[in-house]
Amino acid sequence: MLDAIAFDADDTLWHCERHFQEVHEAFLNLLSPYHERAWIEQRLLDAERRNLGHFGYGVKGFVLSMIETSVELTEGRVGGKEVQRIIDWGKEMLTRPVEPLPGVAETLEALAKTHKLMVITKGDLFDQESKIARSGLGSHFQSVEILSEKSEASYRSVLARHRIHPHRFVMVGNSLKSDILPVRALGAHAVHVPYELTWALERVEGVTPQSHGFHVAEEIRQWPEILSSLR
Amino acid sequence: MLDAIAFDADDTLWHCERHFQEVHEAFLNLLSPYHERAWIEQRLLDAERRNLGHFGYGVKGFVLSMIETSVELTEGRVGGKEVQRIIDWGKEMLTRPVEPLPGVAETLEALAKTHKLMVITKGDLFDQESKIARSGLGSHFQSVEILSEKSEASYRSVLARHRIHPHRFVMVGNSLKSDILPVRALGAHAVHVPYELTWALERVEGVTPQSHGFHVAEEIRQWPEILSSLR
Repeated sequence: MLDAIAFDADDTLWHCERHFQEVHEAFLNLLSPYHERAWIEQRLLDAERRNLGHFGYGVKGFVLSMIETSVELTEGRVGGKEVQRIIDWGKEMLTRPVEPLPGVAETLEALAKTHKLMVITKGDLFDQESKIARSGLGSHFQSVEILSEKSEASYRSVLARHRIHPHRFVMVGNSLKSDILPVRALGAHAVHVPYELTWALERVEGVTPQSHGFHVAEEIRQWPEILSSLR
Repeated sequence: MLDAIAFDADDTLWHCERHFQEVHEAFLNLLSPYHERAWIEQRLLDAERRNLGHFGYGVKGFVLSMIETSVELTEGRVGGKEVQRIIDWGKEMLTRPVEPLPGVAETLEALAKTHKLMVITKGDLFDQESKIARSGLGSHFQSVEILSEKSEASYRSVLARHRIHPHRFVMVGNSLKSDILPVRALGAHAVHVPYELTWALERVEGVTPQSHGFHVAEEIRQWPEILSSLR
């Protein structure tokens, strides 16, 4: 029934947001001599939102937003050593091992025997390619699509390029905003895989499986059953 | 005879390296109270080379390398305002208008009537997509491939994905290292379009049209004639 099963990568196949949150926490600590934590957090989020249009998603943009926030909140008094520490956090994020979530490798291996599997992820091209390589999962996927934004239009273009009809396509991912809603708008299937953390700029309200007709897999081992039930 | 004509983007379709060099110059001026220009230049190039494996190509990585170099060369004494100025240069580079080189728009329009045209560029996904959109040239291209690196393997994978035989493919671009050599290694055609500036990390020595069997177009208006002579 399905021409392709596509998976989001970050926080669907492996942990990602928790690495951002760890660095986020370290950043709050770095600036805590200057300001209240809630205020630092607010200014950083403002910088990230403002800079999305310049830098897009990913670690490099996050690092630049942290540096900007550190300059702003210290009125320029931030030291070169602190700035270098922020850059080093980014380098660490970009090179740390990528461990598939428990059960992902076996489940993909099984699904790859009967289906065309794809990765559709957004973010920084270089970083995403590197993570797929480090994950050791690359061989399960017949194609990897890295998008600058996950929108109805960008999914439509991927499906057209691969000549896949939306009714014969399913997207599996943790972000309601990026993995579920745009795909449902095209009439394709979607399986939501809730993750413990969601970045503030990915949060949406009032979206339920009932309201938007998608499936929910609380556990990775439920994927095959849910996917085989789609029609 | 040709299934597709592919063009590099930066410094082939529009100016790019001159914007990097302008900022490079401003950066030397910023640090000139601390060090000799040649030494600053050397340390920046070292940082760029060292960071390519972390950040890949593009403006964001360049900005981060400049910030690192400024911290290193001032022994941490660089001020927040200088750091912010470096980030602002990056934002300017990422948003400035993209003007096609003289003759490019007309030439592409004519070629698109008889051939499948592609863009194959490397660098930052978000920035490259944005530049193609800002250039107004997007509609001439049937496909746009943004790669993290231009190697024999990455060209092979693009051609396989598009089911194009190398003998029926030509790449047009300004970089011998990225646009000409890997494509010639696959047995495809290549047209070198020399540009006035070449980034230090793209330079190669001892490569001539005779030694590597490629064509040279000194002027954009020569493109159609050279392309139609390929067989």
